[in-house]
Amino acid sequence: MAGVEAPRAVRDEEGVSRLAAFSDAVFAIAMTILVLDLRPPPLPTHPSDRAVWHALALWHDYAGFVISFLVVGSYWAAHHRAFRHVVRWDGALVWLNLLLLLGVTFVPFATAVFEDYEGARPAVLVYAATLAAVGLVWAALWRYAAGGHRLVAPDLPTAALRGMTRQAWVPPLVFLASLPVAWLAPEWAPLVWLLLLAQALVGELRRPRPAA
Amino acid sequence: MAGVEAPRAVRDEEGVSRLAAFSDAVFAIAMTILVLDLRPPPLPTHPSDRAVWHALALWHDYAGFVISFLVVGSYWAAHHRAFRHVVRWDGALVWLNLLLLLGVTFVPFATAVFEDYEGARPAVLVYAATLAAVGLVWAALWRYAAGGHRLVAPDLPTAALRGMTRQAWVPPLVFLASLPVAWLAPEWAPLVWLLLLAQALVGELRRPRPAA
Amino acid sequence: MAGVEAPRAVRDEEGVSRLAAFSDAVFAIAMTILVLDLRPPPLPTHPSDRAVWHALALWHDYAGFVISFLVVGSYWAAHHRAFRHVVRWDGALVWLNLLLLLGVTFVPFATAVFEDYEGARPAVLVYAATLAAVGLVWAALWRYAAGGHRLVAPDLPTAALRGMTRQAWVPPLVFLASLPVAWLAPEWAPLVWLLLLAQALVGELRRPRPAA
Amino acid sequence: MAGVEAPRAVRDEEGVSRLAAFSDAVFAIAMTILVLDLRPPPLPTHPSDRAVWHALALWHDYAGFVISFLVVGSYWAAHHRAFRHVVRWDGALVWLNLLLLLGVTFVPFATAVFEDYEGARPAVLVYAATLAAVGLVWAALWRYAAGGHRLVAPDLPTAALRGMTRQAWVPPLVFLASLPVAWLAPEWAPLVWLLLLAQALVGELRRPRPAA
Repeated sequence: MAGVEAPRAVRDEEGVSRLAAFSDAVFAIAMTILVLDLRPPPLPTHPSDRAVWHALALWHDYAGFVISFLVVGSYWAAHHRAFRHVVRWDGALVWLNLLLLLGVTFVPFATAVFEDYEGARPAVLVYAATLAAVGLVWAALWRYAAGGHRLVAPDLPTAALRGMTRQAWVPPLVFLASLPVAWLAPEWAPLVWLLLLAQALVGELRRPRPAA
Repeated sequence: MAGVEAPRAVRDEEGVSRLAAFSDAVFAIAMTILVLDLRPPPLPTHPSDRAVWHALALWHDYAGFVISFLVVGSYWAAHHRAFRHVVRWDGALVWLNLLLLLGVTFVPFATAVFEDYEGARPAVLVYAATLAAVGLVWAALWRYAAGGHRLVAPDLPTAALRGMTRQAWVPPLVFLASLPVAWLAPEWAPLVWLLLLAQALVGELRRPRPAA
Repeated sequence: MAGVEAPRAVRDEEGVSRLAAFSDAVFAIAMTILVLDLRPPPLPTHPSDRAVWHALALWHDYAGFVISFLVVGSYWAAHHRAFRHVVRWDGALVWLNLLLLLGVTFVPFATAVFEDYEGARPAVLVYAATLAAVGLVWAALWRYAAGGHRLVAPDLPTAALRGMTRQAWVPPLVFLASLPVAWLAPEWAPLVWLLLLAQALVGELRRPRPAA
Repeated sequence: MAGVEAPRAVRDEEGVSRLAAFSDAVFAIAMTILVLDLRPPPLPTHPSDRAVWHALALWHDYAGFVISFLVVGSYWAAHHRAFRHVVRWDGALVWLNLLLLLGVTFVPFATAVFEDYEGARPAVLVYAATLAAVGLVWAALWRYAAGGHRLVAPDLPTAALRGMTRQAWVPPLVFLASLPVAWLAPEWAPLVWLLLLAQALVGELRRPRPAA
């Protein structure tokens, strides 16, 4: 079909934009419905203030919500940053992206598992494995898109591409590294994930300010 | 009203873009809320690891989630590919598209039926019939848009259009073909659907790589 | 602030586009989460086929789902058609639009009421009143935007604007007219609404085909 | 990476647009799923009209839904207005924006708390504190973006920027001011919030009409 489309490059950027917009929508929805896993526990009518404060002390649930939101948010930020350089698309990119979004969509369930079975080893393992899998698909997608400049702008320096590819492997490796921690001491695994977020945040803030 | 709008073609592409963006949003939401059908089963506080692993062995539910996500995702990919060629719209297109989105929106319910009444013949039939109906509406929409180049770019070769139309009939025919299978042996129907996904995936990967 | 922005007209169209895109998102989400009101009723494990068919005979719920989807979809189609002519925005438009979206967002609740309290007079009245209110806000918004060409393109003929304004009053008037029907014979009110949908559909299909 | 991208300004506006679109999606979803906190209470089959009317008298829930929708909607309107002037982005903006969206996403939970534990002091405090926090993050984000014209268009007059910054502090200050009211007399706090909405509405309507 490639031959039938006049101004090819333009059309491709349009197609990439729609792919990015669709991905944004799935990211946004998955991140927002995380809140549906938080439910105020039922209380009798006219409860005492003390009972209400106690019912709202859902610290484990809040932690799951915040971690999932920020981790998926940082995957979104990476997608947002990287897709600006993508100028072409093909069927493999669409399907790798669907696989990525399948993983992202699964995160609210993994978060609910983490929240409901608090502290249980299998719940922490499933959660870490889910986020590792999402990161692995992302790294594979980016490798496919950027390898040999397959789908990215030809004027992008190879060094910049390599830096982005290296960066893409950090989150899945951190989550894979947290699996043995989760096995031995499930309650410490969230600390490993927070290290990841701190690293991502510092990396972001260190980037050069945009020129005027 | 057609006469009052200066640069007609441009305005039409704008209108088609908003139609596509709205469709993307519905596809994205329907695919993401599939995860709301997955719920961690209630367990006593401080359950054993074994009890948690057992509770998480929701294989039938996971299968329903993944199949629905990928099938709706492949319908989205077809929509994404085809709407790039649509340059005009009319009321019939808007309403056929609404009908398509009505079907897409119904999929999370059909999936919940498939998941909750696992293995039951009526559940599998309802699920397959829903996805067949979505595919039939899509094929009808595309036939309407592409027939006689009604709404597509005039420079698109008729052969390419015919190929896309033929392609649009594959998913509904596969789901229709799975109905007798679902009737005779409900547990085998998912295999027919997986064949469809494999075929779609191979079709995507075989497409020519985009030129530089 | 109006004085500080160079190319005013362009910036305005950008602002209108973001307003339209935001509205599209709310419409899309409200229409899609209608499906969350449909739940497969709980059944014992390994139910008979007959029990499953019986459980799936949720005709009243399906009717509520389809009517709400199509009515909100037709409001969306009107929004989509009308906002193509809007080229400027102000605070009043933003707030009228928020009020419209507040009504749209309330529809899934009104639909759940209609579905859960099937046939009950108050449920039908609340449902019809909700959809009438949404239609009234839409008519007011369009009157504000189009009155004296306040926010629409200046080259749009007054006759075309008047036709669109007249059209905007049809859905709220139909829903208002269905209120006494709902009072006297709740089970007949849906027929009045279906007449509306039929009228909208015929109106759409009768529009002139877009020129090449 | 800044050096590798030819026409810098254009690329930045694209990046800002995608950031704005993603934010719009989160705002839209958070506002729409507020309706999921409204549930028709269960009633016996074929209830009397009187019982249905009584079941639908969920005034406290409706109030929470409307207040949250309009407050988050007014935050969205501020975001929509302000981001039109943003022409560059950096990592800090992305993360401040993610923090803002985390707060927005938490609002449906805070609203459910407000609705379910009606009148209870802790519920009102949590609700007001959540909306104050969202407002504070928004004020901080805008201060970062606009301070020294860091990320906004250079031709925007400093006076206009200062006016927008001042405006950004109003909602968080109102919600902070409502905290002692919530402590002393929880049932009066909503009145303070309504004052905010009235002020926002009047401010919007007083803005100069857009020029032709």
